[in-house]
Amino acid sequence: MTWLDDVPARIGPLDATATAAAAARLDRLTKPPGSLGRLEALARQLAGITGLERPRVDHPAIVVFAADHGVTAQGVSAYPSDVTAQMVANFVGGGAAINVLGRLAGAEVVVVDVGVAGPVPGLDTGTTSSPLGARLVRTRVADGTRDMTVEPAMTKAEATTAIGVGRSAASELIGGGVDLLAVGEMGIGNTTAASALAAVMTGRPPAEVTGRGTGLDDPAVRHKVLVIERALDLHRPDPADPLAVLAAVGGLEIAALVGAILAIAEARVPVVLDGFITGAAALIAAALAPGVPARLIASHTSAEPGHRFVLEQLGLRPLLDLELRLGEGSGAALALPLVRAAASILAEMATFDDAGVSGPQGAIEAPSVR
Amino acid sequence: MTWLDDVPARIGPLDATATAAAAARLDRLTKPPGSLGRLEALARQLAGITGLERPRVDHPAIVVFAADHGVTAQGVSAYPSDVTAQMVANFVGGGAAINVLGRLAGAEVVVVDVGVAGPVPGLDTGTTSSPLGARLVRTRVADGTRDMTVEPAMTKAEATTAIGVGRSAASELIGGGVDLLAVGEMGIGNTTAASALAAVMTGRPPAEVTGRGTGLDDPAVRHKVLVIERALDLHRPDPADPLAVLAAVGGLEIAALVGAILAIAEARVPVVLDGFITGAAALIAAALAPGVPARLIASHTSAEPGHRFVLEQLGLRPLLDLELRLGEGSGAALALPLVRAAASILAEMATFDDAGVSGPQGAIEAPSVR
Repeated sequence: MTWLDDVPARIGPLDATATAAAAARLDRLTKPPGSLGRLEALARQLAGITGLERPRVDHPAIVVFAADHGVTAQGVSAYPSDVTAQMVANFVGGGAAINVLGRLAGAEVVVVDVGVAGPVPGLDTGTTSSPLGARLVRTRVADGTRDMTVEPAMTKAEATTAIGVGRSAASELIGGGVDLLAVGEMGIGNTTAASALAAVMTGRPPAEVTGRGTGLDDPAVRHKVLVIERALDLHRPDPADPLAVLAAVGGLEIAALVGAILAIAEARVPVVLDGFITGAAALIAAALAPGVPARLIASHTSAEPGHRFVLEQLGLRPLLDLELRLGEGSGAALALPLVRAAASILAEMATFDDAGVSGPQGAIEAPSVR
Repeated sequence: MTWLDDVPARIGPLDATATAAAAARLDRLTKPPGSLGRLEALARQLAGITGLERPRVDHPAIVVFAADHGVTAQGVSAYPSDVTAQMVANFVGGGAAINVLGRLAGAEVVVVDVGVAGPVPGLDTGTTSSPLGARLVRTRVADGTRDMTVEPAMTKAEATTAIGVGRSAASELIGGGVDLLAVGEMGIGNTTAASALAAVMTGRPPAEVTGRGTGLDDPAVRHKVLVIERALDLHRPDPADPLAVLAAVGGLEIAALVGAILAIAEARVPVVLDGFITGAAALIAAALAPGVPARLIASHTSAEPGHRFVLEQLGLRPLLDLELRLGEGSGAALALPLVRAAASILAEMATFDDAGVSGPQGAIEAPSVR
């Protein structure tokens, strides 16, 4: 048995005892019951995921998987493929949105090169880090995927290896004390792969789940839909075989995301999803391991039209709706303070008894003068 | 001329030059144009408010105004009036939601007693502070308002004095270096006052703008609506005279919020609103000074049904929708990281030129090896 065969059985339902304890505690805190709305639901979920009545989010991290896509040969992106490597260099240099947002959220940013085609400008091989920027882990499985309109994007072996890269990256961070892990990605062309995956896994036509990506105009979106339809006609991927779907029309960074999501869920650590691409990876992870969705936190609804179908299928309600369409983990980073807030409310607020505050319709004694 | 007569003329339109400079800079940053969605709109607004191409949010603070309401004699709240003073004590002790959320947002919390009826448990008079909790400023104008169903809640002189309290509190914080100010409130019965204000200022019937507050059931909400209708029948307040409306059916903490909002806007500092009660105060401030709404940031849509009408009239779109109904400034505190993120994106991200990243459809030279 490989880890991948075995892990679904180890991702069980949420801990009902911890969830109930957190729910009871929330009702004793100095606020009207339920008045913190969705933050309270999030606090209960964090308790259920971690098995702790008072879960902590003290060491969040963001892991960004990067890779290139052969399907860019079909003209599906507004940007050239070189931008993937250039943006990885920008992550390491500290100038990208995810660097700024990660710093603000108090979260380390780790970038994993799973398959960037060509050299990353300004960087040697090996593991690199910069004081301001992201730590770069280079575990390149291939020089990008192959063109899905001509052949499968990856072999099953490549997909499995990339899943292992994601698993290792997540496990290392969690082993180092990370207690909440947000996932992001970078890869020119990857909204095409994510749209293809979403079409297969949700059963919706490509035209419904395909959008502008980094900024296509209407004719270019129509072309992108045709490209995805050609790839799906060629491979006819079966949603009952999620690994085959991933290999046929996925991406190396998407496979790594699948591995990371499974490993984080296995470790009972909350997973914060970013946008459409991480959502498509979560669909594959959920198809492999049905216990996954309950352990996911959807940070935001992206401007990509397919994202809401992905979230619907996962049964997730996003925390933010800010019309973001950047990726990198930027939406996840923006939602991190809300997740920390949910945990801190549970851990740090006073109860009615602690504070000498009256409950509804009743009154208790005020505390003595301090 | 008093400050209140004079201030509307000093709250002008946003700085168009700074807004345009920020917009141009946003398009040079290493991301597809517009891909950070509403965060980019927020960054432009911050530039327009402050007059700076790169506004900073380094020292945010949250000011919470507290007071009691005579209308609680009519049985409009699920909690006894004593809870206002008890919660002020809890703020000072550091155990309330706003303490936890303020700490997470890196924002000092200042509580201003504008008119809490009766002693605050455990506290002497004067200004008090605690290392973990909020700083308390005691500038009590009256022992709460009078019952609006019997007589005006405040005299015009009391309302004006309370406006001055809000102005002073905000000005002192801004003078001390605060560069973003969030406003919140505490006052058992104040959703009744806010609903009455919202009904008058939006022209909607009380039944449409009145909700459960801290947790009323349906019959109690119907009773609350009748109480508000009686008060409006008695005073017949004229929306063209916002100070008279405020005095008749407002609250001391709501008047202080009006003064604070005007003073913050005058100082070209961004104002982050919390929920329904701060929104009702903003309606009064906007009626006094039409330049106010452009300087407001709506943190969230509250579960109170009147809030969306208030935001509509102010022309504001909230950042969060988390079904919050706590007040205290809790929603504003939860949105602070988003506002900081908008400012930091503008100030800290690399441009395409800085980072050697290609723009759409083109390619520029990669930077030299570092």
